Amino acid sequence: MSNGLRAHNVGLSCGRLRPGARNSIADVPGVLVGHTTLNEGDIRAGVTAVLPHDDNLYRLKPVAAVHVLNGFGKSAGLVQVHELGVIETPLLLTNTLSVGTCCTALVRHAIARNPDIGRETATVNPVVLECNDGWLNDIQALAVTEQDAHAAISSASSDFAVGSVGAGCGMSTFGFKGGIGTASRSLDFDGGRFHLGVLVLSNFGRAGDLRLPDGRQIAPPKQTDSTGLPEKGSVIIIAATDVPLSDRQIKRVIRRSGVGLARLGSFWGHGSGDIALGFSTANILSHDEPNDFARLDILNESRIDLLFEAMADTTQEAVLDALVAAGPMRGRAGHHRAGFSTP
Amino acid sequence: MSNGLRAHNVGLSCGRLRPGARNSIADVPGVLVGHTTLNEGDIRAGVTAVLPHDDNLYRLKPVAAVHVLNGFGKSAGLVQVHELGVIETPLLLTNTLSVGTCCTALVRHAIARNPDIGRETATVNPVVLECNDGWLNDIQALAVTEQDAHAAISSASSDFAVGSVGAGCGMSTFGFKGGIGTASRSLDFDGGRFHLGVLVLSNFGRAGDLRLPDGRQIAPPKQTDSTGLPEKGSVIIIAATDVPLSDRQIKRVIRRSGVGLARLGSFWGHGSGDIALGFSTANILSHDEPNDFARLDILNESRIDLLFEAMADTTQEAVLDALVAAGPMRGRAGHHRAGFSTP
Amino acid sequence: MSNGLRAHNVGLSCGRLRPGARNSIADVPGVLVGHTTLNEGDIRAGVTAVLPHDDNLYRLKPVAAVHVLNGFGKSAGLVQVHELGVIETPLLLTNTLSVGTCCTALVRHAIARNPDIGRETATVNPVVLECNDGWLNDIQALAVTEQDAHAAISSASSDFAVGSVGAGCGMSTFGFKGGIGTASRSLDFDGGRFHLGVLVLSNFGRAGDLRLPDGRQIAPPKQTDSTGLPEKGSVIIIAATDVPLSDRQIKRVIRRSGVGLARLGSFWGHGSGDIALGFSTANILSHDEPNDFARLDILNESRIDLLFEAMADTTQEAVLDALVAAGPMRGRAGHHRAGFSTP
Amino acid sequence: MSNGLRAHNVGLSCGRLRPGARNSIADVPGVLVGHTTLNEGDIRAGVTAVLPHDDNLYRLKPVAAVHVLNGFGKSAGLVQVHELGVIETPLLLTNTLSVGTCCTALVRHAIARNPDIGRETATVNPVVLECNDGWLNDIQALAVTEQDAHAAISSASSDFAVGSVGAGCGMSTFGFKGGIGTASRSLDFDGGRFHLGVLVLSNFGRAGDLRLPDGRQIAPPKQTDSTGLPEKGSVIIIAATDVPLSDRQIKRVIRRSGVGLARLGSFWGHGSGDIALGFSTANILSHDEPNDFARLDILNESRIDLLFEAMADTTQEAVLDALVAAGPMRGRAGHHRAGFSTP
Repeated sequence: MSNGLRAHNVGLSCGRLRPGARNSIADVPGVLVGHTTLNEGDIRAGVTAVLPHDDNLYRLKPVAAVHVLNGFGKSAGLVQVHELGVIETPLLLTNTLSVGTCCTALVRHAIARNPDIGRETATVNPVVLECNDGWLNDIQALAVTEQDAHAAISSASSDFAVGSVGAGCGMSTFGFKGGIGTASRSLDFDGGRFHLGVLVLSNFGRAGDLRLPDGRQIAPPKQTDSTGLPEKGSVIIIAATDVPLSDRQIKRVIRRSGVGLARLGSFWGHGSGDIALGFSTANILSHDEPNDFARLDILNESRIDLLFEAMADTTQEAVLDALVAAGPMRGRAGHHRAGFSTP
Repeated sequence: MSNGLRAHNVGLSCGRLRPGARNSIADVPGVLVGHTTLNEGDIRAGVTAVLPHDDNLYRLKPVAAVHVLNGFGKSAGLVQVHELGVIETPLLLTNTLSVGTCCTALVRHAIARNPDIGRETATVNPVVLECNDGWLNDIQALAVTEQDAHAAISSASSDFAVGSVGAGCGMSTFGFKGGIGTASRSLDFDGGRFHLGVLVLSNFGRAGDLRLPDGRQIAPPKQTDSTGLPEKGSVIIIAATDVPLSDRQIKRVIRRSGVGLARLGSFWGHGSGDIALGFSTANILSHDEPNDFARLDILNESRIDLLFEAMADTTQEAVLDALVAAGPMRGRAGHHRAGFSTP
Repeated sequence: MSNGLRAHNVGLSCGRLRPGARNSIADVPGVLVGHTTLNEGDIRAGVTAVLPHDDNLYRLKPVAAVHVLNGFGKSAGLVQVHELGVIETPLLLTNTLSVGTCCTALVRHAIARNPDIGRETATVNPVVLECNDGWLNDIQALAVTEQDAHAAISSASSDFAVGSVGAGCGMSTFGFKGGIGTASRSLDFDGGRFHLGVLVLSNFGRAGDLRLPDGRQIAPPKQTDSTGLPEKGSVIIIAATDVPLSDRQIKRVIRRSGVGLARLGSFWGHGSGDIALGFSTANILSHDEPNDFARLDILNESRIDLLFEAMADTTQEAVLDALVAAGPMRGRAGHHRAGFSTP
Repeated sequence: MSNGLRAHNVGLSCGRLRPGARNSIADVPGVLVGHTTLNEGDIRAGVTAVLPHDDNLYRLKPVAAVHVLNGFGKSAGLVQVHELGVIETPLLLTNTLSVGTCCTALVRHAIARNPDIGRETATVNPVVLECNDGWLNDIQALAVTEQDAHAAISSASSDFAVGSVGAGCGMSTFGFKGGIGTASRSLDFDGGRFHLGVLVLSNFGRAGDLRLPDGRQIAPPKQTDSTGLPEKGSVIIIAATDVPLSDRQIKRVIRRSGVGLARLGSFWGHGSGDIALGFSTANILSHDEPNDFARLDILNESRIDLLFEAMADTTQEAVLDALVAAGPMRGRAGHHRAGFSTP
C-alpha cells in the first residue's frame, strides 16, 4: 500500500532548510511510529501510533500542546493536554467513528503498565485523533478493534511506511488518494544539532485546489465516481522536536501548520477538522516527581522563527509525501481515488 | 439507591429565585434524563443520559457551548461544540475509563437513526462527560457497556431519580457520598415564563471544605477507611434553558457554574476536571436547512445577570441535592462513603 | 503618497471570485474609511479610521469578533469584543506607540455624542489596532495627536486612498514600502447580492519571502540601507460584510486571513502582531434595546466556505494592493524603502 | 484617605494559611507599589503602579499570565502577555477612560530607560488595567495625566497605603466605598519559604450581596443617593509570587481569583470587567539573552493546590481589606458612598 516513493525524491521539497537523515518524524531521537492497516472487503481503515519514546509514557510525560485550526473534528483528550501541557499515552490516529475504541485501547494499555491508575493514582488521558475515511471505507462498520490499536503501538519503529498505511489507508487529499506522510528539518542551536519532525494524516482539500511548491495548480483527477461526497475531510498534524520548548512555545510552533496547509491550496474548509498536536522530547515531566520544583529548558523566544519556518515547511512537505506515497485505491461501493503523480 | 430526598426539602435552597415545578433540569420543556445503574460486586458505576429533546438530535441541533473550569478531565466531543456551537447527540455522563465505550454507543445510536452519517453526510460528534469513581468502583474493570449507554438513553424521562444513580452510583463529594443532583429556577422575560435547569455529576471537593448556604462549614465524615485517595474528583455541570441564547451567551452563563462550586467550598482543585456544558432549546438548527440564512433568537445582553444568578444558584443547589439524595455506600475493596445529612 | 494604482489593475488578482464595484471594503454598504497622514521631517505616521456605519456606533453596535493570529501586538479593546461580540466605536489604526492617544481620542469622540457615558450608562470600549512603523518613522516622537484621530474619523468616506496613507504612511512589507490596501468579493446568497471587504494595514513579511499569486517568489529590493532592523512588523486585517453572521461565525471567517498571509509567503513571524477584526453590518444591536429579546440573522453554516474563500482571497489581494499603491519612501535617519512594482 | 485599618485587624481573615509579614503583595521580595491620588473638586481618581522589581522591566521580564473572568473591560496589553508569557512594564491601574493616557505614560517611561525601543529593538507593551469610578468621580473629565502615572511609579515602595488611594480613590464595592486592598500568604516548598501576594482594585458587587468569611450576608448601606447607577463595576486582581511557575501555571493559579470573588457574594456580573494578572519573580527572562536556550523553574504540578487555595484566600481577603480601609467618601454631584464597618 506504500509505493516506496517520498516527496523529496520526486522533486517536491519545501523551503530552504535541510531535512534530517530520514526526512521523518523519527529523526527526532526516540520517536517511533507504528501502523495497523485494514484493507479487506469494504474496509479501508487502520490505526497509526506515534510514541514520543519507548518507555512508560504515563510515568514520563513529554511537554506538549494542541492547536485547533478548525474544530469540526472529534479528537479525544485535547482538553487535558491544554490544561496540563503534557501527554501521557501514545498518540493514536484512526477514523472518526473509531475514536471510542482507540480510547478504550489506550486505557487498557496504560493500566497494564501502571496498575495504580484509578486506584492509588489518577486516571489516564488517552489522546486519539481522527479523520473521516467514509468515501473509501465502510466507516459505519466500525471495523477497527482494540487489538488493532495495540498492534499499531507494538509495531512502532523509527523506520515506518508512509502512504496508504495505518489510519491513512482510506484517506483522500485534494481529490487524490491521501494518507500518512512525514518530513523533518535539521536545526542548529547553540552548537548542537536538533530536529523538528512532522507526521500528517492527510484527508483534506477540495479537488482542484492543490498547489505545488513551485506554484503550479494541479487539476483534479478525472473522477470515475460521478457523485462525490461534499468535502468532509480533515487533517491531523503531529509535530515532534528535541528542541527544548515550553508548552506555550510548542503551541506557537504548531500553529504554523496552518501556513503549510495554506501553501498547499487549502483555506481550512468548514467541514475539515484540522488539528495539530506537538511535543518536545527535551522536557519530560515525571509522574512521580519527589521534589516540589522541576525545571523546563526553553528556547530563547527570539530564536523561534526558525521553528516556525520548519513547521510550515514540514507540514507542507508531509502532505505532499502522503500524496506521493499513497498510490491509487478502490474502496467500498466501488469508490475510487486516483493516485497523485507529479506532473 | 436514591432515598427520595431533595435538597430543597431539607432546607438547603440557594438564592432568592424561585425553582421550577420539579426543581429539576426537566423543568425546561422537552428535556429528558435517563439512568443505567451498575451496583453489583465491586462495580459502582453507570451511565446518565441528558436529552435536550426526544426527536432526532442529529437533525435538530440545539445551540450549545462548553466551558472548562479546570481541564484535568477526559470528556469527549468538546472541540466541535466550541467550533460550531451546537450539540448533535444525547449527552452521556459516565466514569473516566468508560468514555470510549459511551462514544461508540453514541456513534451507533446516531447511525441507527441517520443512515446517511459518514456516507452522504458528515460524521457525528458524540459528547461524553466523565468523573472518576475509582474509590468505590472497580474502575479498571471497564464495566460499562454500550448496552448500558443505550438503556440510559431509552429510559430518559422528565421524571428521574437523583443521588447514587446512573453515572453517580460510585461518586463522592466533600468526603461524603455524591452522585447526580439537579435544580432549576423560573425566570420571567417579556411577559413569558422560562427556566434554567442544571444537572450535576458531583464527585469533587476535599473532605472538610463543604459549606452550606448559611455559611456553616461541615466537618468531614468520620472515615472508616484509614487511607484515602488523594483528591482526584471532578464535577460535570449540564445546563439547559428555554431562554433563547446564542452560543456565546450560553458560554457566559455556564461559566458561572464556577461561582456555585466556590460557594460550596471548592477552589476548583488541580486534580478535578470541572466542566460545564449548556444548551438552549429555544434555538434549534436544522442539519438539513435548505435556506442560506437562519435565525437565532437571543437575549438582550443587559438582562443576562438574571441567568448568571440562576446558574450560580442551581449549580450550588444541585450539588447539595446530590449529597442529600445519595445516602451511604460501600464499594470495592470495602471502601465506604458516609451519606451526608444536614446537621 | 498614493500612486493611484490598484493590485487588480496590474494583474495581481487573487482567486476565482468576483470583486465588488470598488474592490474595496467600502463595497459593503455603509462602510467608510478616512485617513490622516503625517509626512514631514522625520515623521511618517498617521491614523486610518474604519467606520461600520455613519450613525452613532455606541448606540448601534455591529456584531463583531477578533482573532489573534500572532499576539506580539499592542492593539487595544480586544478583550471586550471577545466577551460581548460587538464593537461600539470607529476602528482606529495607527502606529504602536500612538495607541494610547488614539484610545483617548475615541473616548472623547464617544462622550461628545453620548453624554451619558460613564454617568447614566456604561463606559466605552475604544478599539485601536497598530503596527510598528519605526523604520521610516521617528516613532519615539509620538507625533500622532488626538486631533489627527478626529480628523481621520471626520474625513471617512466610501471613496478613500490606499498605499502610503493614514496609518500606512511609514509601513513596510516584505522589504518594500507597504501601507493600506483593500479588496472585496461579491457573494450571492438566497438570491441576494452581498459583499465581504477587507482593509489591511500591511507592515509584515521578511524581505525575499514575498510570493505572487502565480507562485513567483520576489527577490528583495536592493537595500540602500546597509543595516536593517530585525523583522518587527505586523499586519492588521479589518473585515466587513453585510452577510448576516453571528460573532462565532465572524471569528471563523476572519481566522482565514491567515491563509491569505501564508499564500503571500509569510509564516506569521514571531515578532509580527497579526490581528484580524471583523464585523457584520447585517446584525446591529441597540444599546437601548427595550425588549428582553433580540434577533440575530445568521448564515446557514454549511454555506460558510464561500466566505472562508473570500476572506483568504481578499486578505491576500489587499496586501498586494498596499504594495502596488505605496510607492517608494524615504524617512527618518535617511532610511529608504523601495516601492514594489510587478516584475 | 486610608484609615490605617486592615481586614485582618478587624477579624476578617480568610482561610487557614498564614499571611506574610506585611499581609501584602510586597511580601513577595522586590515587589513595589505606588499611588497617585486625585481628590479635588469633582475628581476622585488616581493611578496605582505595581512593579515586579525595581530594575529595568523591559530588559528583565517576569514570566506572567492573564485570565479574564468577565471581559466587559478595557484593560490594555493583555494580548501580548497571553502570547509571550511575560510583562515588560510596570503595571498601572486607573479608571476606564484614563487607560490611553497611562499607556502613553508607560511608553515614555520605557523609552526613557531604553532608547533602542522602536529603533534597534522591538516596541514596548504597556499593561494598564482599569475600573469605572464614574459614580464618585467625574470620569468624563479625564483628569489623570501622564505625570500622575509617572509619580505613581516613582513613589513605589514595599510600604504602601490601602483603601481610597491611587486608582482606588473613587471606587465602590457591594454598595460601600471600595478601593485598593492587599493580602498575602506564606507558603513552604522544599524547605524554603515563599509567598503569594495579591493586590486588588475593588469596584464590583451589587449592594446587598456581600458575604463575610463566616457566612453573614451584609445589608447594603442606607443609600443617601436615591438613584443609583446600574452595577457597572469591575475588579482587577494582581497576583505576585516568588514561587517559580511557568506562564501556564500562573494562569491556572490566578483563575482561582474567581473563587475568592464568589465567596464574597459576587457572581461575576455582566457589566463587571473582572480581570486577573499574575507574575512570578522567580522566572525573569532577559530581553538581551545571548544564548539560544534559557531555563524556567517550575512547580511540581501536583503541589499546585496550595497556590490555588492561597489565591482564593488572598483575593477574598484583599477585597475585604479594601472595604475595611476605604472609609466613606463624597464625590461628584454630591454622590456619597458609605464606609464599610464590620457588623
